[in-house]
Amino acid sequence: MSGLESTNAGMAERARFASRRVLTDAPFLAAANGRTPSHRPVWFMRQAGRSLPEYRKIRAGIGMLESCFDPALVSEITMQPVRRHGVDAAILFSDIVVPLKAAGIDLDIVAGTGPVVANPVRSIGDVAALPRLVPEEVGAVAEAVRLLTVELGSTPLIGFAGAPFTLASYLVEGGPSRNHERTKALMHSDPKTWHALLSTLADTTITFLQAQLHAGVDAVQLFDSWAGALSLAEYREFVLPHSERVFAEIQSAGVPRIHFGVGTGELLGAMGEAGADVVGVDWRIPLDVAARRVGPGKALQGNLDPSVLFAGPAAVEKQVRRIVSEADTAIASGTPGHIFNLGHGVLPDTDPGVLTAVVELVHSL
Amino acid sequence: MSGLESTNAGMAERARFASRRVLTDAPFLAAANGRTPSHRPVWFMRQAGRSLPEYRKIRAGIGMLESCFDPALVSEITMQPVRRHGVDAAILFSDIVVPLKAAGIDLDIVAGTGPVVANPVRSIGDVAALPRLVPEEVGAVAEAVRLLTVELGSTPLIGFAGAPFTLASYLVEGGPSRNHERTKALMHSDPKTWHALLSTLADTTITFLQAQLHAGVDAVQLFDSWAGALSLAEYREFVLPHSERVFAEIQSAGVPRIHFGVGTGELLGAMGEAGADVVGVDWRIPLDVAARRVGPGKALQGNLDPSVLFAGPAAVEKQVRRIVSEADTAIASGTPGHIFNLGHGVLPDTDPGVLTAVVELVHSL
Repeated sequence: MSGLESTNAGMAERARFASRRVLTDAPFLAAANGRTPSHRPVWFMRQAGRSLPEYRKIRAGIGMLESCFDPALVSEITMQPVRRHGVDAAILFSDIVVPLKAAGIDLDIVAGTGPVVANPVRSIGDVAALPRLVPEEVGAVAEAVRLLTVELGSTPLIGFAGAPFTLASYLVEGGPSRNHERTKALMHSDPKTWHALLSTLADTTITFLQAQLHAGVDAVQLFDSWAGALSLAEYREFVLPHSERVFAEIQSAGVPRIHFGVGTGELLGAMGEAGADVVGVDWRIPLDVAARRVGPGKALQGNLDPSVLFAGPAAVEKQVRRIVSEADTAIASGTPGHIFNLGHGVLPDTDPGVLTAVVELVHSL
Repeated sequence: MSGLESTNAGMAERARFASRRVLTDAPFLAAANGRTPSHRPVWFMRQAGRSLPEYRKIRAGIGMLESCFDPALVSEITMQPVRRHGVDAAILFSDIVVPLKAAGIDLDIVAGTGPVVANPVRSIGDVAALPRLVPEEVGAVAEAVRLLTVELGSTPLIGFAGAPFTLASYLVEGGPSRNHERTKALMHSDPKTWHALLSTLADTTITFLQAQLHAGVDAVQLFDSWAGALSLAEYREFVLPHSERVFAEIQSAGVPRIHFGVGTGELLGAMGEAGADVVGVDWRIPLDVAARRVGPGKALQGNLDPSVLFAGPAAVEKQVRRIVSEADTAIASGTPGHIFNLGHGVLPDTDPGVLTAVVELVHSL
């Protein structure tokens, strides 16, 4: 391909995302892109959710999946923590299994349990029978994104999707799992079926993220929630190629790509290699240590232990200051940026006032 | 203290444990003590338990805690995997909360849930009110050990106890917890109460282990099951001093001390420093990597992923051979020994025939 063709292709690609707002001054995007933000950006995984009384009120009597396919409700729920806490980014309210449900897989989210899949996927025949997601099936999600790009003003919107491995775990186990034994059994005993499954799920994730990108999200976060259950060798052989393809396929959108999983201390380097611009870190690893594992050129996001939010203002302040200091050490050694966040999602019993205070504290430092 | 006094004190101390069998040829003890075993020893965490039909039969209609205080039943359950699999060590059938129950704390083990504590411990008053364990209260456990030292012949018996942090998590949360938020809140918000609690629980653990040592166990394993939820900084400040005291207080028994927790990749060095002779490693870290973290002079135990046992014989053999090879790399670099084990407990649905095959394979390599 000549340079000119390459440029033309790039222009055509960018034109597909022409509706995106220009938010270059947003601290969240500056930090993610390795520029110096006007203040340290902060948002919280699961900031839209059960910790907020206004969330519990608006969700009363409405099922989780029903909520995720109601554009006005998704928009309102996504906005709630932005209004209340003044966070530097919104994250689309959704659930890991939304694209699977949209594609027609028979599943539901059961309160107190999580996703329950009617027919677990454990054979090559099961994989072949999986329905493929077409963009129209997540039209409600795209519509929510369009509503939010208007509503949010200058606050960036982060798109949301589960990574192929985590989606696979739900499908193979039939629901949430503590040990993922059927999932691991499948990958080790029948790699061909495993890779077929993950390839199919990567297609689903790509379609879901592209729908969000075309509708105007300003960044994406790929959640590989359960990847921390794997050894590095398993991750490299059975997971990385598929997550890599997801990131590669959305690269042309030109927005920051965040990758996160809990308990991933051994995997941080590989998760960065998958194609992330920003690597999310849980609370087990100090950010300066994480920076050495992730390697150069990638910003970090994290990593306050959500349990510390229950320990009172003095403890919260001490830990926030420690994290900011460790992030600054990483930045001094070449890490391009830091987005303050928790090391996992907000716990339902969290006092939302504590979250607001964390935003104010991070902005003041 | 003069050398003579020191020697006399040592002889007196050893006399307290005079009933212990002499099993110096046992491969398990050789590997733990840094001598060359006649074959590579293997046992499995939770080898006595629900994977065995003979266990499910003998436990039918008998509650978990009731079982743990019935010497004949404890002895029989402990023996079952030794008879069936030919493992190189037995581990006393017990539960983390047994010494708490024995001391008089109001708790029960609820099937499908785990331990449930009637009155969670969250204030300095709660800590002061905790009953202290006296050795007579675990007389049934000591009696089981005495029965086993006869029954086991030349197979070593490993004593069992929960570490202070993991006991504290059950008491503070009131039961099993995914996030340990109340536990972490207490340690960060009220370190004085926290350390008082852990000091009390260290006393309990010491009393429980000494009762087992006096009755004749040949080694002990201290389970800090939930320690992997902590950062290294938290572990060092809030946990290590108390686990260190437990190991120091039982050092004079002269038996190998094993320390294990799941998800402890970041903590392996500190868990060795606590005073372990053998550090247990979960499946996330290859043993040669673990050896570098643990440091010299400590044997390793582990680390087959219990989920791999569901993946069929070819996958199991491949992973067993990999682990043995990684252990040999560690030994070539100075690690004094390797005890083959899982990286976590046997899962209830495991086919016991697969466990027997692993024992045979490890012994053949």
